[in-house]
Amino acid sequence: MEGIVAGFTVDFEVRDSELDGQGIVNNANYLHYYEHARHLYLRSRGIDFVGMHEAGLDAVVFRIEVDYTESLRSGDEFSVGVSVAREGSLRLVFAQEIVKRSNGHIASKARVVTAIVSGGRPVRPPAELLELLLG
Amino acid sequence: MEGIVAGFTVDFEVRDSELDGQGIVNNANYLHYYEHARHLYLRSRGIDFVGMHEAGLDAVVFRIEVDYTESLRSGDEFSVGVSVAREGSLRLVFAQEIVKRSNGHIASKARVVTAIVSGGRPVRPPAELLELLLG
Amino acid sequence: MEGIVAGFTVDFEVRDSELDGQGIVNNANYLHYYEHARHLYLRSRGIDFVGMHEAGLDAVVFRIEVDYTESLRSGDEFSVGVSVAREGSLRLVFAQEIVKRSNGHIASKARVVTAIVSGGRPVRPPAELLELLLG
Amino acid sequence: MEGIVAGFTVDFEVRDSELDGQGIVNNANYLHYYEHARHLYLRSRGIDFVGMHEAGLDAVVFRIEVDYTESLRSGDEFSVGVSVAREGSLRLVFAQEIVKRSNGHIASKARVVTAIVSGGRPVRPPAELLELLLG
Repeated sequence: MEGIVAGFTVDFEVRDSELDGQGIVNNANYLHYYEHARHLYLRSRGIDFVGMHEAGLDAVVFRIEVDYTESLRSGDEFSVGVSVAREGSLRLVFAQEIVKRSNGHIASKARVVTAIVSGGRPVRPPAELLELLLG
Repeated sequence: MEGIVAGFTVDFEVRDSELDGQGIVNNANYLHYYEHARHLYLRSRGIDFVGMHEAGLDAVVFRIEVDYTESLRSGDEFSVGVSVAREGSLRLVFAQEIVKRSNGHIASKARVVTAIVSGGRPVRPPAELLELLLG
Repeated sequence: MEGIVAGFTVDFEVRDSELDGQGIVNNANYLHYYEHARHLYLRSRGIDFVGMHEAGLDAVVFRIEVDYTESLRSGDEFSVGVSVAREGSLRLVFAQEIVKRSNGHIASKARVVTAIVSGGRPVRPPAELLELLLG
Repeated sequence: MEGIVAGFTVDFEVRDSELDGQGIVNNANYLHYYEHARHLYLRSRGIDFVGMHEAGLDAVVFRIEVDYTESLRSGDEFSVGVSVAREGSLRLVFAQEIVKRSNGHIASKARVVTAIVSGGRPVRPPAELLELLLG
């Protein structure tokens, strides 16, 4: 991977409604955390996710790989990191991680493969989007 | 209330991800159950919720009252009932309840006040919608 | 109502995963916001919601009334206020509201009726809990 | 992989609250579908997920890989398949897929790596659990 942009993080705190019957954050909620951090990252680069959708360009997730290494529990505060790189002509791949603020441990890592979809099929990301995203 | 249409129910089963740290279904998830049952009711009457949105008419929730009388737990199967009536010129009010199939107990009741919104403000429901909904 | 404790607020920002197909925050997600704000309020008063559960005392929601007055959309930042009062011998009633930070408008108001449940039935809130909560 | 148990499926229908602002099911909700299908699979084999938790044995997800190949939309009905195999001494790996009932297309595939955790660390799955799960 090339073009990694590091250093963007978003702070979160576990909401008790995100726990499941085991008393730990349900695995699906990590995807909400990761997505919210990605969208804030996009916005920080001047890219409006919802505006793109209204313009007929959707950033679509094609594959997610998530490692869960340490459970998140009630009251846990954590930071979600975001970096992104282009892979091939179509894919924009995000590398993300969740770090617990109490102990600095990595609670989870993710690799999220996305592409821009227009008219139902993946298209090359517009040059101005790439410039904003990776420039 | 007049014009109540009774007898429409949808069957559900608790998903463990809907439990929270107390081991009972989180209060917010009842609203998912109630909404899904309402939308299936609309569809059963020939009304397409998403199609309405695309046509510029949104059925919007203005108020929800929910009573929680018996907790739902892992494995519970339940039915969600739907009836609807017009109140005044603008409001369409749904009366709903959740019945546990194991013991027939009412686990929850809800009153959901909705209105049709177009161009940012409530409008009288179109006659053909009322005909489908209440006819 | 007496004993209202005002002035506690929690800041939030809409996550795009909380939007539904209408492009507005789904009505159920407001309950997540309200609950998270209540739990942070409890913690600010020295009350540990999960610890209570482990000690056999559950704060259970019996009724929720929510008014939705202005939709929340992608990117909206808002504050959720919490106040609480005792009603009768058993009920602890939270009054909450959601205020959009962009325009100061109240987006939603809620009244949440809770009680302490132990051994399957509501009990009088322990004196030390009331002291922390309302003192 | 060995010991694959095929043929277990669970039927679902998209709930509109599971859509996001793009009008498609949000990627996180697939994990709810996959988990619910796994838990029903466990129950069909006589394994009680919540009961295990109460007995101090938690089935914990360590890694999820999900491919999203065709979006799910309002009204879509689909089936979620479950098979499982043991990998090494600790891992129980689920292979899952989501098939749209309207066209038979695979909408998504997942590989879910789990292990039994007791006292905070992965342990060999108890023999009786393996017998129920794979026997």
